[in-house]
Amino acid sequence: MKNKKINIIEKLKKFDDYWSPKVIAEMNDYQIKLAKISGEFIWHCHESTDEVFFVIDGQMTIEFRNGIVELSEGEMYVVPKEVEHKPFAEKECHIMLIEPRGIINTGDIKNELTVGNDNWI
Amino acid sequence: MKNKKINIIEKLKKFDDYWSPKVIAEMNDYQIKLAKISGEFIWHCHESTDEVFFVIDGQMTIEFRNGIVELSEGEMYVVPKEVEHKPFAEKECHIMLIEPRGIINTGDIKNELTVGNDNWI
Repeated sequence: MKNKKINIIEKLKKFDDYWSPKVIAEMNDYQIKLAKISGEFIWHCHESTDEVFFVIDGQMTIEFRNGIVELSEGEMYVVPKEVEHKPFAEKECHIMLIEPRGIINTGDIKNELTVGNDNWI
Repeated sequence: MKNKKINIIEKLKKFDDYWSPKVIAEMNDYQIKLAKISGEFIWHCHESTDEVFFVIDGQMTIEFRNGIVELSEGEMYVVPKEVEHKPFAEKECHIMLIEPRGIINTGDIKNELTVGNDNWI
């Protein structure tokens, strides 16, 4: 019982920056993260892992080279490893991510949007 | 873009049995499952893995040998591997689970509550 319960709404109040996933829990070598997103992200892929997107609040799209997926609150999508994708949200959207520890948000790209990958809240 | 998006509410309409987790998504060798729970489960532990509980709707408790955790909608708890726990819900509660592929719901115990571990909906 060493762990504490994690309240998603309370955790979302703890940060405001976009496109900067925050770790809220860890299981084995996987992490569960929250992110606030707004506007366009960049095309990127994760060469070693799938990535789960789960919309907590709002709407987002994930663009692929061969199509687009629109996600609303309560909807989830698994982006397969090595698949290029470009997340986008017209308005602020709150999402949960599940991915292995150590994953970089911009995947194979390093630029000004790249942030630390182990920021706990 | 071979995957489809997964709507949690729609998936929850597809089954009614309690304590029988259904797989809704897979990332790498991990699975995301939904379960409906009501009443008492059994004391058990998972010797090889942590387990994530996330309450979608309703309330549940997880009893430990040294305490109890009460979870409401939007709250998450990571049960560490090897830690004995006993889930309970006074009324029907809907939860999301994250765990490696192949995990048995009753962990180290096999009894009439043990169900198949790869039931997709």
